[in-house]
Parts: sequence; structure tokens; C-alpha cells
Amino acid sequence: MAVMTEGQSRKEGNMNTTKKYVYFFGNGKAEGTRDQRLLLGGKGANLAEMTNLGIPVPPGFTISTVACKEFYAQNSQWPAGLEAEMSENLKRLEQATGKKFGSTDNPLLVSVRSGASVSLPGMMDTILNLGINDDAAKGLIQKSGNERFAYDAYRRFIQMFSNVVLEIDHHNFEHILKAKKAKLKVTEDTQLSAQALKELVKEYKELVKKITKKSFPDDPQQQLKLACNAVFKSWNNDRAIIYRNASKIPHDLGTGVNVQSMVFGNMGETSGTGVAFTRDPGTGEHKFFGEFLVNAQGEDVVAGIRTPNPISQLKQVLPGAYAELETIYQRLEKHFRDMQDLEFTIEDKKLFLLQTRNGKRSAAAAVKIACDMVKEGMISKEEAILRVQPEQLDQLLHPTIDTKAKVSVLAKGLPASPGAAVGRVVFTAQDAIETAEEKGEKTILVRRETSPEDVGGMIAAEGILTATGGMTSHAAVVARGMGKCCVAGCGAIHIEANYFTVQDKTGKTIKVKEGDFITLNGSTGEVILGEAKLVTPELGSDFKLFMGWADDIRRLRVRTNADTPEDSKIARNFGAEGIGLCRTEHMFFGENRLKIVREMILADNEKERIKALNKLEPMQKGDFKGIFKAMAGLPVTIRLLDPPLHEFLPKGGAELKKVAKDLKISIKELEKKVLSLHEVNPMLGHRGCRLAVTYPEIYKMQAKAIFEAAAELTKEGLRVVPEVMIPLVGMIGELTFTKKDIIQIADEVMAQRKVKIEYLVGTMIEIPRAALISQELAKEAEFYSFGTNDLTQMAFGFSRDDVGKFLPYYIDKGLLKVDPFVSIDQVGVGSLIELAVTKGRAVKPNLKIGICGEHGGDPSSIEFCHRVKLDYVSCSPFRVPIARLAAAQAVLKEKKA
Amino acid sequence: MAVMTEGQSRKEGNMNTTKKYVYFFGNGKAEGTRDQRLLLGGKGANLAEMTNLGIPVPPGFTISTVACKEFYAQNSQWPAGLEAEMSENLKRLEQATGKKFGSTDNPLLVSVRSGASVSLPGMMDTILNLGINDDAAKGLIQKSGNERFAYDAYRRFIQMFSNVVLEIDHHNFEHILKAKKAKLKVTEDTQLSAQALKELVKEYKELVKKITKKSFPDDPQQQLKLACNAVFKSWNNDRAIIYRNASKIPHDLGTGVNVQSMVFGNMGETSGTGVAFTRDPGTGEHKFFGEFLVNAQGEDVVAGIRTPNPISQLKQVLPGAYAELETIYQRLEKHFRDMQDLEFTIEDKKLFLLQTRNGKRSAAAAVKIACDMVKEGMISKEEAILRVQPEQLDQLLHPTIDTKAKVSVLAKGLPASPGAAVGRVVFTAQDAIETAEEKGEKTILVRRETSPEDVGGMIAAEGILTATGGMTSHAAVVARGMGKCCVAGCGAIHIEANYFTVQDKTGKTIKVKEGDFITLNGSTGEVILGEAKLVTPELGSDFKLFMGWADDIRRLRVRTNADTPEDSKIARNFGAEGIGLCRTEHMFFGENRLKIVREMILADNEKERIKALNKLEPMQKGDFKGIFKAMAGLPVTIRLLDPPLHEFLPKGGAELKKVAKDLKISIKELEKKVLSLHEVNPMLGHRGCRLAVTYPEIYKMQAKAIFEAAAELTKEGLRVVPEVMIPLVGMIGELTFTKKDIIQIADEVMAQRKVKIEYLVGTMIEIPRAALISQELAKEAEFYSFGTNDLTQMAFGFSRDDVGKFLPYYIDKGLLKVDPFVSIDQVGVGSLIELAVTKGRAVKPNLKIGICGEHGGDPSSIEFCHRVKLDYVSCSPFRVPIARLAAAQAVLKEKKA
Repeated sequence: MAVMTEGQSRKEGNMNTTKKYVYFFGNGKAEGTRDQRLLLGGKGANLAEMTNLGIPVPPGFTISTVACKEFYAQNSQWPAGLEAEMSENLKRLEQATGKKFGSTDNPLLVSVRSGASVSLPGMMDTILNLGINDDAAKGLIQKSGNERFAYDAYRRFIQMFSNVVLEIDHHNFEHILKAKKAKLKVTEDTQLSAQALKELVKEYKELVKKITKKSFPDDPQQQLKLACNAVFKSWNNDRAIIYRNASKIPHDLGTGVNVQSMVFGNMGETSGTGVAFTRDPGTGEHKFFGEFLVNAQGEDVVAGIRTPNPISQLKQVLPGAYAELETIYQRLEKHFRDMQDLEFTIEDKKLFLLQTRNGKRSAAAAVKIACDMVKEGMISKEEAILRVQPEQLDQLLHPTIDTKAKVSVLAKGLPASPGAAVGRVVFTAQDAIETAEEKGEKTILVRRETSPEDVGGMIAAEGILTATGGMTSHAAVVARGMGKCCVAGCGAIHIEANYFTVQDKTGKTIKVKEGDFITLNGSTGEVILGEAKLVTPELGSDFKLFMGWADDIRRLRVRTNADTPEDSKIARNFGAEGIGLCRTEHMFFGENRLKIVREMILADNEKERIKALNKLEPMQKGDFKGIFKAMAGLPVTIRLLDPPLHEFLPKGGAELKKVAKDLKISIKELEKKVLSLHEVNPMLGHRGCRLAVTYPEIYKMQAKAIFEAAAELTKEGLRVVPEVMIPLVGMIGELTFTKKDIIQIADEVMAQRKVKIEYLVGTMIEIPRAALISQELAKEAEFYSFGTNDLTQMAFGFSRDDVGKFLPYYIDKGLLKVDPFVSIDQVGVGSLIELAVTKGRAVKPNLKIGICGEHGGDPSSIEFCHRVKLDYVSCSPFRVPIARLAAAQAVLKEKKA
Repeated sequence: MAVMTEGQSRKEGNMNTTKKYVYFFGNGKAEGTRDQRLLLGGKGANLAEMTNLGIPVPPGFTISTVACKEFYAQNSQWPAGLEAEMSENLKRLEQATGKKFGSTDNPLLVSVRSGASVSLPGMMDTILNLGINDDAAKGLIQKSGNERFAYDAYRRFIQMFSNVVLEIDHHNFEHILKAKKAKLKVTEDTQLSAQALKELVKEYKELVKKITKKSFPDDPQQQLKLACNAVFKSWNNDRAIIYRNASKIPHDLGTGVNVQSMVFGNMGETSGTGVAFTRDPGTGEHKFFGEFLVNAQGEDVVAGIRTPNPISQLKQVLPGAYAELETIYQRLEKHFRDMQDLEFTIEDKKLFLLQTRNGKRSAAAAVKIACDMVKEGMISKEEAILRVQPEQLDQLLHPTIDTKAKVSVLAKGLPASPGAAVGRVVFTAQDAIETAEEKGEKTILVRRETSPEDVGGMIAAEGILTATGGMTSHAAVVARGMGKCCVAGCGAIHIEANYFTVQDKTGKTIKVKEGDFITLNGSTGEVILGEAKLVTPELGSDFKLFMGWADDIRRLRVRTNADTPEDSKIARNFGAEGIGLCRTEHMFFGENRLKIVREMILADNEKERIKALNKLEPMQKGDFKGIFKAMAGLPVTIRLLDPPLHEFLPKGGAELKKVAKDLKISIKELEKKVLSLHEVNPMLGHRGCRLAVTYPEIYKMQAKAIFEAAAELTKEGLRVVPEVMIPLVGMIGELTFTKKDIIQIADEVMAQRKVKIEYLVGTMIEIPRAALISQELAKEAEFYSFGTNDLTQMAFGFSRDDVGKFLPYYIDKGLLKVDPFVSIDQVGVGSLIELAVTKGRAVKPNLKIGICGEHGGDPSSIEFCHRVKLDYVSCSPFRVPIARLAAAQAVLKEKKA
């Protein structure tokens, strides 16, 4: 999402509005234009634009976002001059409409709506019919000759105003309304008589007085001021803040306030209201799409009180208005050169447009619309590429829950890895494996949290559900890496031995036993009881066409992070151009291997250690052959062993006992080893190449396995391009020390096998010091790969496992705009990356540089990687298309800038 | 120690020696000079210099250090050309001496000695009398007419050569010698007849054959080549490596080999040998100081077989030689402009100098000699300043064990904090406090390891002894901070409930009970049984004079890290110019306070938390008043709370029970809280200003205490300059967020108390990101203080608590030259510091910048701080004089460069 920075918005604000806060539109002429979104908000800018286009828009004025920002800056006081400016514009509005605000003869009613520069749907409220009171209602009746309409407008106003401004729960009003309908034995609001509505107004006002201890405000001027304040304040209500956090929208943009003369869709059978899209937002199909209600106001469509009718029927009901709407929608789409989302009202057959904006759409629709518009000659390929949000593509790649299916949501956790999964509940990795292997059944692995030992089970399961842990927990990271659905940190579930419980909304405890079916929605975090229906979206021809354009444009190569031949194949199908990170440690967790790895760790001397490593070597060789085959012809970056050895040992309890037995040593001895490997800060401990400095034989075994695998396949005629990567390098000595052995082994294997292997030896840049001494490392390294997960942890001094204790506060209080583990911190971590690139290329101009942290699949991080001239990004298989698109967009955005 | 870098030594090597490896000296003329230490080693360069000065030196030649380095580079092969060059120089030596190597008539015997460019005392060996065999012995007898002398030289040669070259333990030979003396009923070596010595030669050779299965090498050429190889190899023997590591000497300098014609001090009563210093190396007194033996060779003086005589007696014994020696020593001191350490031999009344070098001296001597030489007009004040190693001053500041005292060393640990301490053994902090308070007795606190809860006991004790933990363990760091003696990581002691045991050399178990006296030597790591006599060195007038010169020269200010008024006073006496780091957390560990701190941590809500904090505030205010008073007129930098809250909670067991009872909550509840505060990587967790973001009330309380204390003292007329420092800042938002509250509280206190307080609010720079965004932080921060401990941990990705598992390997294998926690890593961490300084001063040119990590007391780090233009360093009180001197030396070294 293109979000303006603080600096930009401030600048525009200062230039335009030190004196002017209010912008009028009406009579075919507006003070604003569509280009002033930042100043007027999206809604205000487009109302101005439509007015200037001569499209029928009820006149009104927009209070700018600058006024909102000053309101906050001045402790919820209006900026000087705003009040006077508003009075003046209200007068202009009275002149334009020929009505008078608060008049008993011909009263002007207005709507008051928020409108920020970026869309925050449903975040802030709208007040309709403002300006009404007992006297004005009489005027309205006199003017319209329609008493029922007047009291309908009146009761609607009281409810909305009370809800939005006075913060009275709307259920209170609905309760009264329901009672009234029951008493009168009617079912629909429209069946209520003028008298009944008049009584409702009275009862509503009594309710307000009872709750607020004050009379409902009758003065229209006061109503307007209070309503504007409420809109200003709504910018910082909880759901707005949460939405902005989730959507990475800055908190300091502020909202505009649109005050617009009312037109009434509730004046009888020749009136109505509706919303429409110029194309189908779900599929992208090129047809007019929408809904309307006769004799209704806008909120009736949204609230679902009455079922709206398809827009096509409007043609029969009000053909004149429909024809005009058809002309206008085509004009608007052409003018804005994008699919539009319209709101309209018909007052006694006369059509008014209340809003137009670029319509939100599904991923499939986004791709189709973009392709169609290129075909229609409406936009260029480059524009098309910018029309689809890379993140959206995720929807197209994972199976999803059929949106038509009715589901029973048990609980909600974090949407840790998108997609959907259905399976029987299992509680151990072992059970997941056995159920899959022996019974061939799909499972959902449910764990308090997962650990590396669960990886086998995670692979076997369809999805993973954890009770604790966040978006970057082990479960989340591994699942995303596998493209596997995961709901993490679902605190509502309580796991017992072979069942879990959860309380439903009524407080009833629901017990889900081992073997019961559940469904996970990894895109929403929902945990659903039973088997929901899943649909696998097809990647159609539009998708291929579209991605082809992206590939033509991008400069960055896109690789994948994959540890298995299966993942490698998936990624290659998604367009991966090699492997950027193959983690070798996951290969050590297999049933047969873990025992040998533990023998190696527990070895008392180098000889014993080498004995165990020799047993692992043929297995590793097999792993590499599988991956090399799947990626034949493309480079494969293999990271040598990275995690601390204690990750391979049991933590305690029954497992310790079992392992001691397996390894034929005493529990005490095993405990002693576990204790001796314990670290206060494992993140900063004995791992990565530090292991190779103390135990060089480990990397030697891995190198041997790599080159033996490469030699065998090369002899078979495959092109194999291993890139051996040393993790956690912080000193030049670490690289020279480890590289020496690798080269020696490569030479030995090539000589022995009589074959030439293209290979490189490079280093991760994940320790801050590595970036700082890049001028030294570049002399030895044949490539760099930024491990931005660790680099972020160390640059910030944040432990990803512990950050949950304070990072949410940072986001809430605005100290951090974005979680730096999701999007690269460009100012801090980014400057380290730039430094490393600059210093490294100064020594070795053609140094190949990539990134293999989780950020490699994040669009804004990819844009950064493009800008600092990396050669490639590497991400999990299911993010490969996202990265391809983001890389193309980066080129286009750079051109624009 | 001024150590050459790799680059320098290589350069010099390349320039001089691609063709020449051997440098001759003799006949009053040498090919080398004193300036070629790097090439010829210190011994070789000075032998050349003395030769050129016309001082009687036995002729010889030096094989350069470049040959040694090439020997290592070429897999222990001699570089091409060396052999030929050596033959040629051997011929020149035969010409110069008129003797012939291996001759049976007039054989040339030589000594072969190592000699590196920096002194490595006792590290490598010497072989005397090389070139002798049965035939040559006969020649020697014929020429000298002294059979006893010839066989004495022969048996000495076999023993030395066998020991150094053939690696046969010298005890084997001493055993035979002892048996021989017993058989002949004599006590002194000198009493052995020629016949007896001849028999010894035979018996020695038989021993060699028995052990090596080969005959002792008789060929002088072969002897020489093997001896040269042994010297080359000795550069990398274990003790040499350990010594270089300890002394921060690079491992790639290599050693020279000096082959010099023998002169014989063992030719009878008119011959002799000795060592002498031109001034007293212990006190610095200006008098000739040394020892000699008649009828002896050099090793007899060193080995202590015979007791040497004071040099003054030489005047009576051999007046001619003595007179010449007196003239020469004065000439050499004048020529080298420093106190010299000489070796000489007198062969039949003729004096020969075998070595001269700048003499090692005690700290007291170093200061006195430097001052005296300035007074004598021999050197300038600036030269004097460079003559004392800053580290040495430490000796002058701490009480030390009387070197004349005879002590019983129980065990040896790490010399973690220098000085000495005597006291009764206690095993708990509580006992240390009670014994000190109630009985007024001195104690040594003995713990497996210490934790923050032990701090009270550490303060009460005279010294600390721990069984585990390294030079940077809690005990070591805290003790150094307190200037308190500490021996850490003494693995030989086994602590039981109320005693500890240790095995003596004979394997006997010694039990040391609670209440027994022990003595610690924190400068050597020795643990001594009983009460050793201590002496407190006086800081004499020379010390004051000398430090005054340093203060005149230095630009860097020197502050101290002090948390108590007592430490502040000590530091001020040592010349501290303010406090650079006052850690407030230590103030929370007092008996009464810890309970309140725990109440605060366990509070369920802000209100409860504030209630607990309000109880702490007057206590904190009292702390600050004490420190402000001690530092009146000088700035005091107070770091707000830094450690994670779990550090204040009990870890488990009995303590948990007690604390739960104290706080009147259930053990389960307390356990739950402890668990909820647990962190996977506490180093990177919820601490520092992150605590203030989640619990702003903590820093507010501290700020209130600071400004209330400052206000009260200001009203009393004292000048108080608080500098409030925010720890662990990594984002600008953290600084603005916390600073806002501090300023508000300062304003409130000043308004209420009607007083103006000079104060600053600044930030630690200890998170890498903080350095990277210095351009942002400098806008808000009024000062920076580099926390180089954490900055090093995070830049390297090293956890100081865990680094013991691999850092020793790094040092051993030469991947790291210096422990980066001891001396700032200038290339990596240093570049972050420079970046922060440059970016910060670009925004705020007068930004005050200091350093308060442990590096602030390390001379080479101080030199770096000077170079990058910091304003001050801050170190523990006992390192203040060291820092003052190092800061002055930094200025002088910069001028030189």
C-alpha cells in the first residue's frame, strides 16, 4: 500500500492550509480536486472531482485533515479560524441548496462523514440527517408533505448521533424499535407509520436523557460541532488504530470531515439508495455489479435489515435513474482509470452520487481487471502491475475455505501462515506422522508450542495450531516456510493430554478430542469445528500473463528458501530461480538421524565425533541429491549447520530417559551434557560457524556430502551449482578458517571423481559486525546473503522469542510503525545492509548479494532490496510469486520517483 | 605495550630481506642497528648496536625474524638461500674468532639464542657451547690446557641441547648428576673433577640413546641446524602462545636466532658471569644493581644452583672487569636513554657484553625512574609519560601481599580483580554482612558463583573467591567495579555446605572450614592458606608529579563508574572528574528495598505499582544525595533502571518460599510471575528503556528522586549537575517518550522548590541501531555515553555469559587477537562508534560524548576514544589513574604518528 510518510503529509499541509481548513463543492464547481487526497481525504477529494466533472453530487464542504491534526495537536481544541470558516461555508451551502440550517420552514439537513487519505473501511462513523429537531421536522413535513419521511429521518438521526457522538450502544435503540414493531405487530421498519415513528423519536430522546442525564441536543449548530468532534476523535478509536497497525498505515495522517446536504432515499417508492461496483469485485468480470433498496437510507443496505436487490433490477424499477447511473459509472471508471465502488441515492427519481472510490477486490479480480484493462487499452502493462497488491496473490496460491460454507468458529488465534487446512486433531508429532503414514489420514497438529523436534510432525500434518507463540514463533516461521497453514497463539484453547477445550460465546465448554475434525483458516486465524469445505484456486491464464509482465520488468532475481525436494519443486513451479537458503539442520531431525546427531554431540573426542558424522554423511548426500535434482540448472545455496547443539538434545523428563536409554548412557551423564550445553542467551551463543571453529569436522562432513552429491549428478549430466554458505560470520578469520576446509574437500572430491563442479563459497551477513567489516569479508566471500532475521535481532537488541513482552506497546504507542521482523527497518538495519553492499562491492564489484531472511518475501522489504541493488531475494515457496510482483513494482516505483 | 601490527612487520620484512636473512656482527662493526628490532629481534638488534658502539661483544650473526616467518609459511622448511647464507656467515665468524667450527685443534663453540622483537621472558630457550663433540673437546683441552673446563662445557651442552632440541626432560640429567655427586661425596658442581665430568658426558649420551633410540648428534653443522629449527619452533610452543595471548602480542611476529661465538665464564677463578640493571628495578633507586658468579656459565645464575653474589662484590674480585662494566653500563643507559638490563661474561678477566635491553621494572620503579630521568635531563616529560605502562599503575593502588612473606598456595584461579585480601572464609552474603557488622571481622566471601543478590555481601567482604565463572563473570565485574580483590573460576576448590576442599600437590585433601583464614592474591589468582602479610603501597611525591604531567598533556576527561558515595570519594581522590556511570539498580538490592521492588514487580496494575515505587522514592533520593555530595561541583551521570525485572525475583527453591511468605502471596502465584518474566534471551529482552515504555512510572519515580535530591542540595549551596541517562535506546521514539516525562518532572520539582538545576538528559549508545540512527538521536539527546559492553555483545552477536564456550578457541587459533570485551574491537565496534560520533556531531557539533563500558579503563581502548574525539572516558575508581595516564599517552602517540 502506498502510504505517505509523515514528512510528506506535513509538507502538503503546511503549504495549503495555514489559513484555509474548509473546501466547498457544489453547483458544478469544487475548491478541491482528486489530487488532494492527503489534504481532503479520499472521499472529499473524489466528491470535489465528481462535482467538477458535472456529475450530480449534493453540495457540501470538506474540513481538511490538517484541521484534524491540529485538533490533536491542540488538545482537542479546534484550530483558530475553523469555526468562522465553517459558518461561512454553511452559508454557501444554504445558498446552493436554497435551504436553511435549523430552519422551521425549509430546513437544511446534512450528513457528516469521515474520510481519510487512505481507506479505513468501517473504521469511523457516519451521521445522516443532522440538523433535525422538533421544529425542523415540522418544516420538513411542510415542505415534503410527507410526515412519515420526516419522522423516519428524525428517528434515524437520533440513533446515529447518540451512537456516534454520545456513545450510547445502538442495541438500546434497536430494543425500543423491536418492542414497537412487536406491539404494532409489524415486521419491517417500512411498515411503521408516521405516528409510530414520532413516538419512537420521543422514546429515543427519553432514553438519551436517562443515560446521559442531559437532554438530547436540539441546536443544529451544536449538533454539527459535536459531530465534527466525534469524527475527529474517531480517527484514534481502538478499531481505527488496530486497523492501521494491521495495514501498516501511519497514525498521523488524520481524517477529513465531509458535511454534505442530505438527499433522501427514504422519500417513498420513487426514492432509493445503493452501492455498486463497475466490475465484479469477487471475480473481476466486466459487468456492473451492486445492490439497491427502494425507500431507504444508506445504512439500511449495509446493516442488512432488509435484503437489497441486485442492481440489474433497478433498470425495471427506476429506468431513468438507472440509465443515468450507467452512463456515470462508465464515465467514472474511464476518468479514474480503475474499477470504481460507488454510492448513490435517488430522491424522487433524481440520481445523486454520494461517493466514488477505487473498489476493493479479491486477488483473482485484481489480476483479471488489470489484465482486462490492458487488453481494453485503458492502462499500460506497467500500470497493471502496480494495480495488484503483491500480498494479495497469497490468496490465489493456498487452498481456502469456501466462502459460501457455513462454519462454526471455535476460537481465533493469530493468522500465522495463510491458507486453510482440515484434519483430525493430533497432539504429538509422532501421532501426526503415524496417522499420515499408517492410516493415510489428514491431521491438524495441536501443540502448546512447537519445537524443532516437531518438524517431522509438522510436515506430516495439514496444519498446525498452537496455544502460545506469536507470528514469528517456531510454528509460524516453519509453517510459512513450508507454505503450510498455521494458527498460532490461540490462547482460548486449553490443551490436556488427549483433548483440548474451549469456551464458546455463551460460556459453554466445548471439548475437542483426539481424532475429531477441525479446520484452520490461516488467513484469519479462525479455528473451526468440523470439516469446512475447501477450494483450491486455479492459477488461470490471466495470472500467467500478468506474472509474465512482472518478470519482464523486474531486475531482482527471486529464489526460494527450501529444505526438501518437495518444497523445491513447488517453488520452482511458482517461478523460483534457484534456492537462496537450504537449511541443513532440518535434515538432522529425522527419526534415524537425531540419534546419530546426538551420538556426535555426546562424543568425548574428535574421533568419536567423526565416527558419528561419517554415519550422517551418506544421508546428507542423499538430501542434497534430491534438492539438486529438483533445482537442476539453478543455483542452490546451502547453509551449513547453524543452530546450537543443545537444540538437538532432549529438554528433560520422560524424553531424557528415553534418549539416555537409546544412547546407552546414564541419565546423569546425559543431564550433565545438557547442562554443559545450556546457554544464558542461546541466540548469542555457541552456534553457526562458531561450531565449526570448535568442531571443524562438522562442516567438513557437510561439505563432503555436498560435493559428493554434486559430483554424482554432474556425472549423470545434470548441471548442479552449489553455493556453500557459512552462517553467523562476524570475523574474517571465521570465513578463511572454514572456507579453507571446504575448498580442500571440493578439490579432493573433484580430483577423485574426475569431475568439475561449479561452486561458490560465501557468507551470511547476519551479525552486525559482519556488515561493518564488509571490506574485509568481500575479499574472501564469493557471495553474501543477508540473514535479516538475526541482523534485525542484533541491530535492535531484540530477541524474537521475547519481544512479545514489549513490542506490542511500541506499536500501540507509535514508537514503531511496523514490526521490524515483518518489514525491514530501512533506517537502521537497512543502513547496515547498504553499508555492507557498498563496502563489499568497492572491493569486489561483481559480488553476488542476496537476502534470505523472512523479509525476502515482504513487498516493502523487496522494494528496499531492489533500491540497494541486491541481486536476488529468497523467500518461502508460496511467496515466490509475491516477490516476483513486488520486484517488478520496485522497478516501476523507482522510475516514478 | 606498543605492539606492531601485522601490516607493519610484513612491510619491513619485505623491504629488507627478500634476499638477505642473516646479519653479521663482530670486529666493531655490525650489519644491523638498534632500529631493526622487528627484523632482528630485540636481542639481535642490540647486539648489533653494541658492536657498532665498540663495546666488547663476542662476534656472531643473527638470523632474521623473516626467516622464521617463512619457515612457518613453508611447512617448517628453511627458506631457499638461508643455508648458504649461514655457511658464509659461519666462515666470517671463524675468521673473526680465528677458530674453526668442528675443528679438533681450535674449535669454535657458539651459543644459539632466540630473540623476538618484543620481549617474551623465559619463553624460549638458549643452547650454549654448541659445536662440541669428542674431537672438539680434545681441541679445547689442547688450546685451553684446561680439561675440566672442556668437559664442563661438554656436559652442559649435552643437557641443554637434549632438553631444547630433543625434548628430553632435564630432570633425567639432573638425576644422573646428583647420583654422581653423591657417589663422589661432593655437594657443588664446581667440585666435580675433569674425570667425573667426562664420565657424565658418557652417561648423558647413553641416556639420550636410550630415550631417542639414536646416537647423540656429533656433527656441529647438524647440531646448529637442529638448534635453529628448535628456536624457530619455540616461537609457537605452548607457553609462548599463552604469554603472547596474555600480553596481547600478535602471533605472527616470529623470532630471530642469534648465533654467537662462546666466551667462557667457566674457565676458572678469573672468569665469571652475571646480570645487572643500571638502576634498581624494584624501587627505581639510582644505583647499579645485579648479581654475578665466578667460574660459571649464564644458566647457573638463573637456575639458582649456586647463590650469586651482589654485583658490588665484583669490584673486589675482578676490579678491572668491574671498572669496565661500570663505564659500559653508564654509556649504555645514556645511549639507550632508559634503564638497561645487561648480561655479561668475563673470560679470564676480559669482559664481554652478551645482551642489553630496556629493563623490566615494578610500577614504583617505573614512576621513579621516569621522574628521575626527567630531573637528570636525560628524557623529556613527554618521554617520561610514555615510559610507564598504564596497566602497571594498578600495582600502586591496591594493597598487595608482602613479597618477602612465605605463603602456602592452596590453588590458583583467575586474577579477576587485582590487589590482595585477607579474611575469614564465609559462604553466604548474609554471613559476610553479619560477620562484618556484628563481629567487625574481615571476611572472604567464597561462592560457586555470585549473583546480584550477593552484592551486599561482596561489599561487606574483603575479597571474593568463586569456583566458576571467568574474567567477566558477575563476581569479576562487580569486584573490579568496587576495586575489590577477586579470584574467580578457581575450579580446584570444591564447595560444600560450610567448608571447601582442595587437593594439594601431593594429592592430599585440604579442608578449609568456615571461619578459617585465607588470603587472596587478585593479581596472580593465588588462593593462600592463612593470613599473609599485606602492604599498602604509598602514592609518593613522584607519583603525584608524574600524574600531574599526564594531566597537563591529556585532552580526554576521566570520569568514574560509581554507585555509592564511598566509591565516588575513592575515585575523586584518584582524580576522577565526575561520574560517567551511576547504576541505579544496585541500589535496589538492599535488604529493605528488594522487598519493595518485588512488590512493585508483582503489582497487578499501575496503581499498585506506583504505591510501591512511592516507597522507594525517598530511599533513591537519599542515594543520590550521598553521591551528589561526594561529587559536588562535578557532573554525575545517572543511568535509569536497566536490568530485566526477573533479576530481582528469586530463582527457585527455599528462597522462593521465603519471598512468597514475605510478600504474603502463594508460592504458586510467585512461581507464575517468575515464569511469566522468564526470557529465552534475557540479554535481548525486556529491559532498559523498554521497561519505561511498558511501565513509565518507574523512570518517573527515579527522575523525581534525582531532581528532589538535586534541589535540596542546590538549596544548601552545593553545585549539583545531574546527567540523566536512558539505557538501551535503539529508536528515537524511546528517547522522546522517556525524555518528555523527565523534563516534566524536572520542571515540576524546580517550580515547586523554586530552584534552578543544571541538568542534561542523554542516552546510552549500546544498541547497534542507536549508533546507526545517531543523526536522529542527536537531535534529542544532550549527551551520548557508549555502553561498549553491550555494544560489543550485540555487534559480535556474543553473549558474554556464554562466550566461554568458544572464545578461547578463537584466541588460540588466532581468529581474534584480543578479547573484544577487554579491548575495544576498533575495526568493527569501533566503526560503529565513529559512525555515531560523526553522524551525531553533524547534527549537534558540541554533543558531549563519553564511554562508560569496561573499556573505559583499558589503555588501548582509551587511545581509540581519544582518536575518535570522545570527550571523556569513565572507568571503575581504581582505574582512574590508569585512564589519566593512558589518555596522556594517547595524545603523545597521536603526535608521533
